[in-house]
Amino acid sequence: MSLEFWFEFGSTYSYPAAMRIERASEQAGVELRWCPFLLGPIFGLQGWNTSPFNIYEAKGRYMWRDLERICEAMGIAFRKPSVFPRNGLLAARIACGFAHERWIGDFVRAVYAANFVDDRDIADAAVLTEILSKLGVPVASVLEHASASESKARLRVQTDEAQQLGIFGAPSFRVGDELFWGNDRLEAAIEWHERGAR
Amino acid sequence: MSLEFWFEFGSTYSYPAAMRIERASEQAGVELRWCPFLLGPIFGLQGWNTSPFNIYEAKGRYMWRDLERICEAMGIAFRKPSVFPRNGLLAARIACGFAHERWIGDFVRAVYAANFVDDRDIADAAVLTEILSKLGVPVASVLEHASASESKARLRVQTDEAQQLGIFGAPSFRVGDELFWGNDRLEAAIEWHERGAR
Repeated sequence: MSLEFWFEFGSTYSYPAAMRIERASEQAGVELRWCPFLLGPIFGLQGWNTSPFNIYEAKGRYMWRDLERICEAMGIAFRKPSVFPRNGLLAARIACGFAHERWIGDFVRAVYAANFVDDRDIADAAVLTEILSKLGVPVASVLEHASASESKARLRVQTDEAQQLGIFGAPSFRVGDELFWGNDRLEAAIEWHERGAR
Repeated sequence: MSLEFWFEFGSTYSYPAAMRIERASEQAGVELRWCPFLLGPIFGLQGWNTSPFNIYEAKGRYMWRDLERICEAMGIAFRKPSVFPRNGLLAARIACGFAHERWIGDFVRAVYAANFVDDRDIADAAVLTEILSKLGVPVASVLEHASASESKARLRVQTDEAQQLGIFGAPSFRVGDELFWGNDRLEAAIEWHERGAR
């Protein structure tokens, strides 16, 4: 049984989860699976054309304050992005196509930091190029691969799968058939894995 | 600074919070304020005529399973109510009018257990009569007081206050000006109080 991390690059609470999940799963000896997907189509099925945090004002106001507190407690930087939600499509295609590469964790964290610390446009290929360059990966071939029709289809399939699994928000964690939703449920997901392993 | 517990008797995640908050606040040496309110009017402002757990199917399915896991981990009983959400109006009027009585904690817990363990109709005055009798309080005068126009107005004022404070769901906790939403944020709220007290 692995720990599946279902995340969306535009999702606010996915940021603290992304920053800590690799270390947390290593410490617990759990195999981590990176499962990027898109929230847009899933929100669309619920009748929303943007994040519910934009639609429901009080909930949105609370979320930004809560996220600030969470990042402070975790000791990670945070700056409210000037655009929300940011379009994570290209970054998700890269993460989906290269989910098994050694650099996936560093890539995911760098994209989240670009969005939620440096307030950069993660839909911009130049921003992603800079991130990939720093990781020392062959940028041109990675971007070419991510924009191929197979990669586009792969992310669509993974987003459909998320919906079929009953995922309605991000981050979500899956261990066996058990679903956990929200950054604050990571520990419960790891504990569930430990119970299953005993 | 006290710990304010904003709850609604029909709210699922308010159940585990209600069962543990009195002991948790006693252990932390925090003064607890019981603040019942109604979610209906607040949901209504968001365009919902029932619980979002009924409107958004995947979210609802997840919530019931999550609640089951939480209750199991806490070692408290749980049975999915046959009617959801139950109407907590009369119970909230009682809790609002008698929030400072010694028996308030026992009353709140008994109402939640009736709803989420015994699957009883907490809108039924007979069910509340039974609960109050067991607590040894003067049932007739409590019920009469709860149904007086002053008590009705008091709950309305408290619900308006919840909305003005930015409360959009239950349970919510408040410490000073700081808002925390969700059963899983009780510890963070208590910690915030401890930081403030230092």
